[in-house]
Amino acid sequence: MKLISGGVCAAKGFQAAGIHCGIRHNRSKKDLALIVSETEASAAAVYTTNQVKGAPLTVTKAHLADGKARAVICNSGNANTCNADGIAIAEGMAELAAQALGLKAEDVLVASTGVIGQPLSLEPIRQGIGPLAAALSTDGSGDACEAIMTTDTRRKEAAVEFELGGKVCRLGGIAKGSGMIHPNMATMLVFLTTDAAISPAMLQKALSGDVQSSFNMISIDGDTSTNDMVTVLANGLAGNPEITREGEDFAAFMKALNTVTVHLCRCIAGDGEGATKLLECSVTGAKDEKNAKIAAKSVICSNLTKAAMFGADANWGRVLCALGYSGAELDVHKVGVRFKSAAGEIEVCRDGAGVPFSEEKAKEILLQSEIGILVSLGDGDAAATAWGCDLTYDYVKINGDYRT
Amino acid sequence: MKLISGGVCAAKGFQAAGIHCGIRHNRSKKDLALIVSETEASAAAVYTTNQVKGAPLTVTKAHLADGKARAVICNSGNANTCNADGIAIAEGMAELAAQALGLKAEDVLVASTGVIGQPLSLEPIRQGIGPLAAALSTDGSGDACEAIMTTDTRRKEAAVEFELGGKVCRLGGIAKGSGMIHPNMATMLVFLTTDAAISPAMLQKALSGDVQSSFNMISIDGDTSTNDMVTVLANGLAGNPEITREGEDFAAFMKALNTVTVHLCRCIAGDGEGATKLLECSVTGAKDEKNAKIAAKSVICSNLTKAAMFGADANWGRVLCALGYSGAELDVHKVGVRFKSAAGEIEVCRDGAGVPFSEEKAKEILLQSEIGILVSLGDGDAAATAWGCDLTYDYVKINGDYRT
Repeated sequence: MKLISGGVCAAKGFQAAGIHCGIRHNRSKKDLALIVSETEASAAAVYTTNQVKGAPLTVTKAHLADGKARAVICNSGNANTCNADGIAIAEGMAELAAQALGLKAEDVLVASTGVIGQPLSLEPIRQGIGPLAAALSTDGSGDACEAIMTTDTRRKEAAVEFELGGKVCRLGGIAKGSGMIHPNMATMLVFLTTDAAISPAMLQKALSGDVQSSFNMISIDGDTSTNDMVTVLANGLAGNPEITREGEDFAAFMKALNTVTVHLCRCIAGDGEGATKLLECSVTGAKDEKNAKIAAKSVICSNLTKAAMFGADANWGRVLCALGYSGAELDVHKVGVRFKSAAGEIEVCRDGAGVPFSEEKAKEILLQSEIGILVSLGDGDAAATAWGCDLTYDYVKINGDYRT
Repeated sequence: MKLISGGVCAAKGFQAAGIHCGIRHNRSKKDLALIVSETEASAAAVYTTNQVKGAPLTVTKAHLADGKARAVICNSGNANTCNADGIAIAEGMAELAAQALGLKAEDVLVASTGVIGQPLSLEPIRQGIGPLAAALSTDGSGDACEAIMTTDTRRKEAAVEFELGGKVCRLGGIAKGSGMIHPNMATMLVFLTTDAAISPAMLQKALSGDVQSSFNMISIDGDTSTNDMVTVLANGLAGNPEITREGEDFAAFMKALNTVTVHLCRCIAGDGEGATKLLECSVTGAKDEKNAKIAAKSVICSNLTKAAMFGADANWGRVLCALGYSGAELDVHKVGVRFKSAAGEIEVCRDGAGVPFSEEKAKEILLQSEIGILVSLGDGDAAATAWGCDLTYDYVKINGDYRT
């Protein structure tokens, strides 16, 4: 398997585009994206577990009832959530995209991201859909990615090439993250595409399984969004024998999927609102995977640990504290903690108690932009990794006045 | 019932003191507190549910086995947690206090607060215990309160006078809060005293019941501390018939206890690390109390809502989002939200959707120092209140470099 460029257009038969249509006031910011498969594709999705769900999710779920789709339309600048006419607007978006592409509305998935509770007008989308469809290209991944960004500061794209049944397959995608990121059995906006042939049921199985160890292991701020969604389209143009059950091919597909999703996870966590650092907490030696995940995620979610990492302060007591209240089964007296980065690695806690360490060296390690928090529980063989970011002045600044 | 002054010394027969003994480097900051009852008292406590527990909690629990105690010793500047010799040090603190007061070590409760994972020396306590005992007075509540502060900016004291069986009783206490505050079945440091006569079993029942709607309904930053503890001493000097079962007297005692604890809750929440505002989320119309509590606490814990309140931004979509992922049973289409403060009250959401409102008026309301977030669920008769604070630049500043 190798990493390749092309993002959501890396796989055969997919085109994408992104433009500014006028939903956002700032004309330099794209706000409408379109992703299209040239043939019918198996499709699957996972959604936020927030009881307050964006209207686009309801529409997407209905359009995915047959496990097939051709296109995804997504706007930024407005979440189309908690609006009385939200469903009609989301249906309208699918309808407009379908008309422009010569498809049925049922074959179009819909997503929105932005402010909650402000009416979304169809007008700018009606104006923009023609130019957007005209701009579709196999080089359009970057533009589409920009058009789904909110407070993101960087594009988030990834793609891989792998083999199934002797055929070269590709799988790639784009993501937006930044704030209100604490996926729970679902995730933020991610659109994936592949030319691998795989049945809708197996595609859903692959995606639902994958998010448990990818997007569900990120947290930026502990707030589970109302509009989280990951979709994947598989058009089969690679020509591999269609995957219809578990086995070698399914495992290879899962591996490709996980490579792309983990890459996007790291992109999302490292570009969290206001973040200066990507935090990666790896828990090893857990009793089982469930406990490993609970422990890793708790460390990543701790505001105090996040603030300490911002300050490059090796305050490992906060890591122990977060492990202690996580709910994971663990023996405190066996816990070890190390910090790691491009500048080296340092042990700060062994058997649940502090060990003497050089504060200077620790500072040097924690001043890097990617920090590993390595936790060993000494209680078994299971492991898990979670991703997050530091808590900074800019997070407060961005969210103290997001709407204005 | 009336609010009175005197804090932890308001009740008959209690003295307190606080001094600087040298655990903290800053000589202007007190770091050692002592609270003493002139007669044996019924005693009860609740503790953090964090699996990583401070050594003082283990010692206090052992000393409370008989439901009786005479004194509490508490230091700030060091949590005595995750230290190999922690238990011996905590026992040593009880021993030193007992010697100075002519008591048995088993009658002394021990608490510590401060940095986790740094060895605590008994030396400054050994030096300070004599002067501390000599300073004991019925006016000592304020000094004791100062001596248990970490990043708190204000003393937190409260007391009430009430009647039991025709006798005037008093109940009061002191608290420290500020950071790592997200009590769960337990709480931060709070020391309560009363001269009411009540059996150890009923005292424990009162305290365990009370914290469910008082301290367990606060969150500053979502991090449940390793050293949380609330203790209450009841010496019976008021002369009321001892409370040994539920009934009118127990209800009156519970009401007095709750008045003091809710007052301390508001003190703790409003003085959260970096806070500029006290947030009080009142949920009404819930199916049952459990769901009301879950919903109220979720709003108070939301980083995004907290940051919006800092910015005086009426971003009610974040309140809806927090309700949605709370896990509480609710019908989104019935939810209403209003903001309230000394500057007035404004409706921002009805039936799960936005209503037109004056942004100017909303700003004026949210610029006050105490903000009510009023949530109506329209789904029943149950209600709950939770307390928190805004998320500010100063929270990040304080926690980006707490140890240095």
